[in-house]
Amino acid sequence: MTLTGKLFIAGERRDSENRFHAFDPSTDEAIPEPAFAIAGPRDIDDACAAAEAAFAVYSSLPLETRAQFLEAAADEIDALGEALTKRAHCETGLPEARLNGERGRTVGQLRLFAQIVRDGAWQGIRIDSADPVRTPPKPDLRLHKIPLGPVAVFGASNFPLAFSIAGGDTASALAAGCPVVAKGHPAHPGTSELVASAIMRAVEQTGLPQGVFSLLNGTSHELGTALVSDHRIQAVGFTGSRMGGEALMKVAASRKQPIPVYAEMSAINPVILLPAALASRGEKLAQDYVGSVTMGAGQFCTNPGLILAIRGEALDNFVAGVAAAIGQASPQVMLTQGIREQFDRGKANLIGSDSVALIGEGAPATNGCLASAAIYRTSAAEFVQNPLLGEENFGASSVIVECDDIDQLHGLLAEIEGQLTATLHMTEDDFVLAGKILPVLERKAGRIIANGWPTGVEVSHAMVHGGPYPATSDPKSTSVGTLAIERFLRPVCYQDFPAELLPEHLIGEGPNNTIRMIDGKWTM
Amino acid sequence: MTLTGKLFIAGERRDSENRFHAFDPSTDEAIPEPAFAIAGPRDIDDACAAAEAAFAVYSSLPLETRAQFLEAAADEIDALGEALTKRAHCETGLPEARLNGERGRTVGQLRLFAQIVRDGAWQGIRIDSADPVRTPPKPDLRLHKIPLGPVAVFGASNFPLAFSIAGGDTASALAAGCPVVAKGHPAHPGTSELVASAIMRAVEQTGLPQGVFSLLNGTSHELGTALVSDHRIQAVGFTGSRMGGEALMKVAASRKQPIPVYAEMSAINPVILLPAALASRGEKLAQDYVGSVTMGAGQFCTNPGLILAIRGEALDNFVAGVAAAIGQASPQVMLTQGIREQFDRGKANLIGSDSVALIGEGAPATNGCLASAAIYRTSAAEFVQNPLLGEENFGASSVIVECDDIDQLHGLLAEIEGQLTATLHMTEDDFVLAGKILPVLERKAGRIIANGWPTGVEVSHAMVHGGPYPATSDPKSTSVGTLAIERFLRPVCYQDFPAELLPEHLIGEGPNNTIRMIDGKWTM
Repeated sequence: MTLTGKLFIAGERRDSENRFHAFDPSTDEAIPEPAFAIAGPRDIDDACAAAEAAFAVYSSLPLETRAQFLEAAADEIDALGEALTKRAHCETGLPEARLNGERGRTVGQLRLFAQIVRDGAWQGIRIDSADPVRTPPKPDLRLHKIPLGPVAVFGASNFPLAFSIAGGDTASALAAGCPVVAKGHPAHPGTSELVASAIMRAVEQTGLPQGVFSLLNGTSHELGTALVSDHRIQAVGFTGSRMGGEALMKVAASRKQPIPVYAEMSAINPVILLPAALASRGEKLAQDYVGSVTMGAGQFCTNPGLILAIRGEALDNFVAGVAAAIGQASPQVMLTQGIREQFDRGKANLIGSDSVALIGEGAPATNGCLASAAIYRTSAAEFVQNPLLGEENFGASSVIVECDDIDQLHGLLAEIEGQLTATLHMTEDDFVLAGKILPVLERKAGRIIANGWPTGVEVSHAMVHGGPYPATSDPKSTSVGTLAIERFLRPVCYQDFPAELLPEHLIGEGPNNTIRMIDGKWTM
Repeated sequence: MTLTGKLFIAGERRDSENRFHAFDPSTDEAIPEPAFAIAGPRDIDDACAAAEAAFAVYSSLPLETRAQFLEAAADEIDALGEALTKRAHCETGLPEARLNGERGRTVGQLRLFAQIVRDGAWQGIRIDSADPVRTPPKPDLRLHKIPLGPVAVFGASNFPLAFSIAGGDTASALAAGCPVVAKGHPAHPGTSELVASAIMRAVEQTGLPQGVFSLLNGTSHELGTALVSDHRIQAVGFTGSRMGGEALMKVAASRKQPIPVYAEMSAINPVILLPAALASRGEKLAQDYVGSVTMGAGQFCTNPGLILAIRGEALDNFVAGVAAAIGQASPQVMLTQGIREQFDRGKANLIGSDSVALIGEGAPATNGCLASAAIYRTSAAEFVQNPLLGEENFGASSVIVECDDIDQLHGLLAEIEGQLTATLHMTEDDFVLAGKILPVLERKAGRIIANGWPTGVEVSHAMVHGGPYPATSDPKSTSVGTLAIERFLRPVCYQDFPAELLPEHLIGEGPNNTIRMIDGKWTM
């Protein structure tokens, strides 16, 4: 498939007089072909109008059809094959093997949501029977969950497939029955075009209204602001920076009708090395830590940016191991020139702050388009005093904090902001300490990991990729895993309704194989 | 029990130099005894600190203990007997029979949440088994939902028991495991004191930390602002005016850590009289409509403030019936002087707008402390042009809108703001029309009623008392019924955790009799 650079406004490919180019982050040079159309006000308006028009049809399709659409989209993305991998590599600098893995994750996610759609438990059916002889008479009440309406999805830079145009937000919104107006990330517009074309082929194959999906591109904040401001948009999915997420939250809150923004923003993902674990396997922990920090140039929301441990010989040995390992880390291409420059500024700020000591850096960059990892060391007292140390520096950067004792470590955890993850490294001898720390970790993070590393987020039913602010804008939700569908649903109750006007799943025995609550009792 | 007027700061009764009085709305005169303490910054700080300190203990109690606490609170409220009814009547002007019914609703609600707590399904348990031989290895993931933290609850004026200190927000927050800092409505502080004393007796009987509940009183907006701003508060429950709800939403959104506000605010609850129903039982509909509008002086969130029907003889007959019935409605005491004056201003604005004609008014007020009901008539074209007609005038006021045809009626529904309820009156001959209108009603309201009236909100499992903005600030939730517990919960996932550190309900076979999702399959 040849890229055209045109927008997808429902079924229409549309050009613009204003265009931009993708860049190859390994050279910081523009990729000449094609130029990508920048969406203007009419494009946004038309995409939202088409999404609204498609809502009635799409939201009331048989669930089997909706599931088949998701599966067709997965098949079409798979069929993009090498062309997708090569373009994504060129636009993001991510290795091809990683991108192939990410495509597997993306299509697996779509297929998992197809299963969930068929299962129907997300409809949350509840039925309370009438009691006409009670005083006052008790009505017949039947509740199910319905989709919110059109959803705006913002593609993320760091997962050009799994958190972008057909990523988790799109998959869960479409699964919920919501049309999607996607705003492509300007760093990988060719990747977005390929994926959008796959989705549109699935729309056609399944005979859906074409407004179910649109793709808008652009390089300015105005596009995102206008999209979130559109009165037809009913929810927003976003993965990106704290500044970007907070800007969208403000726009959404200042609408005449405020809408929810599900923004996954910023985390430093504390990892606690408890004493017995540190003493018994400090060297292995040092190796694995450096591996987790430097993987994918550290460009993960779940990158371990903060290590907490208690001062002493075991920690000194760990730090020595880290210093040795980090020195062997190769410099890497980052996603964009802007991200790389921000990362280098963040490193300079840390070193300039006098609060930290550099433990070690990766091998020096052999050209201006590469970035080197860096790991720092500080004390708990310095960490608490210097807010800079608690901020995410997106990339392969991490700070080891030395605490005087477990109480100081506990106190520091109580002070930090919300996180996506928290990790405990421990042996059985650490369980008592771990039990003391666990309650504060539950308050701070959406996922708590034992003896592992936070990078790597399984797409499954029990996953929580979320957490208290500013990790996300809504700690009650997840943006990875099947529970993500709930972000785009709301309950509606029908009181004393004639069966002729109720959806089939709310009458009689209801559908097979799913759970319902009947008069307060769960049934299958 | 003698009222003291003192605050409840966890277990401590605390006075203040600044005090206010309750008023008897049937005379607009102050009730002399007692004067009620106004909470200051230290009281707010201490109440929130105590709630935060109580959280760890309260949230991890055995569910049976938490359920027993809710039941003890219900028993203690029941035991208040006549004293509660009499004080509430004096402070609100609501009839004693209504207040006794409302107490039944309040204690029934607490007991229903006790059952829900025991059931445990609200924990939303999901387990994904490990697969160590997969590449990469699949982790063991275990998810449950935990309480958010301390919750601020704002008592509503119009249900001094069921939506106030021990009302639905408090019951659902306590059921979720969240300590509550309540802000009493200044119109019924004596009622609030009695109920708070009952809750505190239940706290003591059950041996809970006293910070589980506090009651702050005051007459200024600053108290509410300070409470919602406190960094320990993690969610807010509010029932009241749109202006009040929106003010709290702004405060919550501008915190360093924004928090959810569940505000139930404003609705006019459209009722659609379809042609066959109107023709066949217009007279009965007129009687029932006037009964619903005037019940409780119209002071219900679900008051039917908007009737939609198609122009013609049947509608003219209905209007004539309404005019006859409304003339016989007695004037009533409203909840406060302020609410009555606002209601009278709203009526004057409507009449002054030239967009409406008065159909009829209730019997004239025989003294300045009574309010008379009023029902108006307008056209769909006028309604769409004049935003005033779409605003709630809290009290016994309603507007009948005459539409040219079903398309105009449908178009009007598509334009109105979000609602708590929408109602269809119909016979079988109306089902085709009803089917056309239903999708737009689902977009607009949380509960859709067939052949009934929206006043009367059953406390049960399938109830939705919620709806799109501005009916509520979060259409994904309900403030009545057992689903309300979900507002105060968030998911946490444990990855590869040793059984020794997991809560009991996440290991082994788990608890009996509740549902869990194991590897994507629902089990009991």
